[in-house]
Amino acid sequence: MTISVDPLQASLEAAAPTTRCRILATAERFFREIGYQKTTVADIAKTLGMSPANVYRFFDSKKAINEAVVERVTREVEALIAGIAVAPGLSADQRVAEIIRELHRDCIERCKDNPRIHEMVEAAMSESWGVCRHHIDRIGAALERVVTDGVRSGEFQVEDPAITAACLHVAITRYCHPVLVSQYPNAPAPPIDAMIAFLLRALHEPARNDAPSKAREPAESI
Amino acid sequence: MTISVDPLQASLEAAAPTTRCRILATAERFFREIGYQKTTVADIAKTLGMSPANVYRFFDSKKAINEAVVERVTREVEALIAGIAVAPGLSADQRVAEIIRELHRDCIERCKDNPRIHEMVEAAMSESWGVCRHHIDRIGAALERVVTDGVRSGEFQVEDPAITAACLHVAITRYCHPVLVSQYPNAPAPPIDAMIAFLLRALHEPARNDAPSKAREPAESI
Repeated sequence: MTISVDPLQASLEAAAPTTRCRILATAERFFREIGYQKTTVADIAKTLGMSPANVYRFFDSKKAINEAVVERVTREVEALIAGIAVAPGLSADQRVAEIIRELHRDCIERCKDNPRIHEMVEAAMSESWGVCRHHIDRIGAALERVVTDGVRSGEFQVEDPAITAACLHVAITRYCHPVLVSQYPNAPAPPIDAMIAFLLRALHEPARNDAPSKAREPAESI
Repeated sequence: MTISVDPLQASLEAAAPTTRCRILATAERFFREIGYQKTTVADIAKTLGMSPANVYRFFDSKKAINEAVVERVTREVEALIAGIAVAPGLSADQRVAEIIRELHRDCIERCKDNPRIHEMVEAAMSESWGVCRHHIDRIGAALERVVTDGVRSGEFQVEDPAITAACLHVAITRYCHPVLVSQYPNAPAPPIDAMIAFLLRALHEPARNDAPSKAREPAESI
């Protein structure tokens, strides 16, 4: 059996990762400089000296380009957080604290200092929720890893590490949600270190059996 | 000294509270039915059988009408929460739990079930931050009251009730922020009761002295 290779196709495929990366790098630069809404696929193509049709060979739509850019940007912080989650020489407390500080720092840097980035993230949040959800899940997995480690080592005393990690994650929304950090910077919030100290207390106290009874119907869970 | 009274002016002033209320009630109905953006002062005036100029006698602008409507709406939940904060026969734990459940239920009801309300709230958030800030502060004061009571009764063990209440408040952002609840309902979050149980643990554990040292520069506080 012989396989016929189209030389043009082969050369296109060899160039693909590079061209793909160049498109993404250019798109990200445009999104940062003039914003997601104003950027067109034609702008990106022109800057790279190629036709829009060639860009569409790699990405179906501007939305698909944005998804890839957002994924590239979020992967960086995910790698950082995953590294802290298994960092040797740090207690579970220290790892939780460091993860929260880094998530907050990253969000402040990306959003507050560069309002156009928010536009890109907001487009992803309304058009490509899957990308955002994956990011949230990966950060959640890192937090769960640390809480589970802390329980194993006896540092933390919680009944359900997965639920506890989810509570911890959702409790820091104000400090790490791009919409809140960029759009409502004046909303009151305690300093991040006070918040970390508060949350760490919840990881140490043994579960009590006298949980308050509900005075009314349970609130709808979200 | 005699004071001359203009009979027309006197009659206008006597009618003022009623007219003001009618304008607000009509505006709120328009905001709920066709949305804040599409509502005009002319619509409101026409429905009430008065001239736009007469509406402007009571409110400077549509923004001012929205501020008053939002204030009226938020006062209801503030009164409810203030009542729970001093409810006799409930432990501090139960009051914290009930306040969080009610804030969440109120937010879900107002925003998720009626997307147009979000438009009104969003307008207030971008144009009239002061109104939103007052609401946040009033809810924060109720939480601080409960935490302080809990410390006094020995139920809670925290060093600084004000900071602790602020941490508690900011930790429930995901459940009570109109933008998050209405715009990102699919963002993951543990059930509200799991979150309440998690947060109550932080109120009981005595402060520890071995707070984790910072491995890097402190994150910028917001």
